[in-house]
Amino acid sequence: MTVPDIDPFHAIAISALAHRLAAGGRDIIHMEFGQPSTGAPGKAIERAQHILATDPMGYWESHDLKERIARHYAETYGVSIVADQVILTGGASPALVLALTSCFVPGDRVALARPGYVAYRNTLKALHMTPVEIACGEAERFQLTADAIAKLEPAPRGLIIASPANPTGTVLPDAELRVIVSVCRDRGIRIISDEIYHGLSYGDPAHSLLEYDETALIVNSFSKYFSMAPWRLGWLIVPPDLIGVARARMGNLFLTPAALSQHAGLVAFDCFEELEGHVATYRRNRDLLLQALPELGLTRIAPPDGAFYIYADIGHLTDDSLTFCEELLRETGVATAPGVDFDPVDGNRFMRFSFAVSTDRIREAVRRMRPWFAARAAAVAGESLAGV
Amino acid sequence: MTVPDIDPFHAIAISALAHRLAAGGRDIIHMEFGQPSTGAPGKAIERAQHILATDPMGYWESHDLKERIARHYAETYGVSIVADQVILTGGASPALVLALTSCFVPGDRVALARPGYVAYRNTLKALHMTPVEIACGEAERFQLTADAIAKLEPAPRGLIIASPANPTGTVLPDAELRVIVSVCRDRGIRIISDEIYHGLSYGDPAHSLLEYDETALIVNSFSKYFSMAPWRLGWLIVPPDLIGVARARMGNLFLTPAALSQHAGLVAFDCFEELEGHVATYRRNRDLLLQALPELGLTRIAPPDGAFYIYADIGHLTDDSLTFCEELLRETGVATAPGVDFDPVDGNRFMRFSFAVSTDRIREAVRRMRPWFAARAAAVAGESLAGV
Repeated sequence: MTVPDIDPFHAIAISALAHRLAAGGRDIIHMEFGQPSTGAPGKAIERAQHILATDPMGYWESHDLKERIARHYAETYGVSIVADQVILTGGASPALVLALTSCFVPGDRVALARPGYVAYRNTLKALHMTPVEIACGEAERFQLTADAIAKLEPAPRGLIIASPANPTGTVLPDAELRVIVSVCRDRGIRIISDEIYHGLSYGDPAHSLLEYDETALIVNSFSKYFSMAPWRLGWLIVPPDLIGVARARMGNLFLTPAALSQHAGLVAFDCFEELEGHVATYRRNRDLLLQALPELGLTRIAPPDGAFYIYADIGHLTDDSLTFCEELLRETGVATAPGVDFDPVDGNRFMRFSFAVSTDRIREAVRRMRPWFAARAAAVAGESLAGV
Repeated sequence: MTVPDIDPFHAIAISALAHRLAAGGRDIIHMEFGQPSTGAPGKAIERAQHILATDPMGYWESHDLKERIARHYAETYGVSIVADQVILTGGASPALVLALTSCFVPGDRVALARPGYVAYRNTLKALHMTPVEIACGEAERFQLTADAIAKLEPAPRGLIIASPANPTGTVLPDAELRVIVSVCRDRGIRIISDEIYHGLSYGDPAHSLLEYDETALIVNSFSKYFSMAPWRLGWLIVPPDLIGVARARMGNLFLTPAALSQHAGLVAFDCFEELEGHVATYRRNRDLLLQALPELGLTRIAPPDGAFYIYADIGHLTDDSLTFCEELLRETGVATAPGVDFDPVDGNRFMRFSFAVSTDRIREAVRRMRPWFAARAAAVAGESLAGV
């Protein structure tokens, strides 16, 4: 056995280039990463300021925050969990490490959608588990289907679900979730549900897997809806029989998340008015892009039900999405993420727009991209003609 | 293969009991955890307050902080590293996960001292690696010896060194470090050096493994010397050939540490005057305990060269250190850590005092423990007589 090779995020290279260009005086529009451009809610920052001024703090796990999260599940999803099932983590990433090491062992096969968040595949590989990628195309709105899971042979030990999904923002409907859970129950497949984009829905609210399957593990964080990505605070919900296993791993592998972030996170639950304002912005941005992108020739996209992403097929313009995104950035100042971060097979002909910025910046991005995409399309048409 | 059982920290149970007693009105002296009772340096807090007031922040890796840490190695140890070798982490715990997954694979044997920090053993087990414990007694001042490493058959793939060590505070002298590195080089053993207690030395300053071995990985953090435990910020230094491997794991498994902590951490490097004040307090506390503990009948201790711990043999009073520490806490309000957290074999007859509190609290702890230990000794003597 050797230490496995895992891919870097290519979007990090794009972002680094964006920052170099900005340092050189260019005006950059950051649509490459999945993070709100807004800061933490005002009251959460006030609370953090108060704590900094009055409390030296210590290693800490906020019981109040675990209670508040448990209450959130009762209020939002109608499911009943106890605070002990909530494990506070330094973001969704370590929550996933915790979930995987609590349920699976090296060699275990864990299924997931392709395209999908790059860290699922890479974290599985780093932990010597085997990612089993299920190709999900436009026909399936880039999402898993119960049918595809039923056909996997042999049955995998686990399944990672993400709804709303990254990079597409598509949501699994209630009916499909029911069948997926039923197939997994029959086949003995443990589900890990990444619900990090919950709260960011443009149609019906997303369902928690816990509504269907009390043996599922739920990953979530304060990074998206709560607009607190740099605070590195998330949580994992485990079924009662895994509390001891998961807590022992949390204490030994990570100890505790940052105390100040926990103080601020608790107050963030009282800031729904401010946070719903962000969602209204994302909704405007989404509508604006859904209107503009087809005018740019990007017609093959799955309308995002949630999150703040649009994943677009650019196969008519390139088969090298990384170079394409680099050139778009250099020539227009619009930073985006190449599809290769999300899909090692077909991602070369896709790109992802993150629209978690202000609506003015989205308008400006569209203004810059319009002539650029037109020129690209003309160049490709010219090459095609030249090839006749 | 099954998900391995790993032990919880028993000190967490002691601490939980301490907080319950405090909530009931008891005055508790917290000597159970390895964390300074002081907060972050004043200027670091000021910086955090300024950032909170002016900057929404984002996912971030501070290049300036990596540069500053690299400079620290040049200034403190005379070793030259580049900023890219520094990986910022959410504390020493994830830095260790990163180090282990970057160097070793499931099934690999990794040697470490017993007694030692409980998370080494448990993290290895959680990652399906095999801890090879080297029993280190009073004769070796509870530290590894080159001789013991040379005798391991077969040679382990890796070795975890901690100097100053937890729970004993003992430091490996320069001469022994040289031989250990030489033995490891000959036997192909990769060294991970946990240097989290550096800066806290009461004799000669501790040496970094990097002075002897440029292939070593170094774990460190802002939690001890810098008095910023709840900020969850640490670092890993990797040799140049492991930069790509380790950075890919950082990005996928953890993303980034908290941005605010990185801002504050950079300023903490300008706060040596305040931080050296804490070290002066620890030195006073250590002197006070080294005088008082023998009067309490605790004569078998390794004088701590560094860190802020004293590990004491209580075998003449108990063979159940967890119950002993619980009773001490209930009856005197002094919280300590049982040896079973650090040594699964002999820890039942040891306890650890952490002296990272104010000197007044140490005086008060000694005042309360004096009659309690005397009564225990008398009770044991009575039992012995009764047994004659």
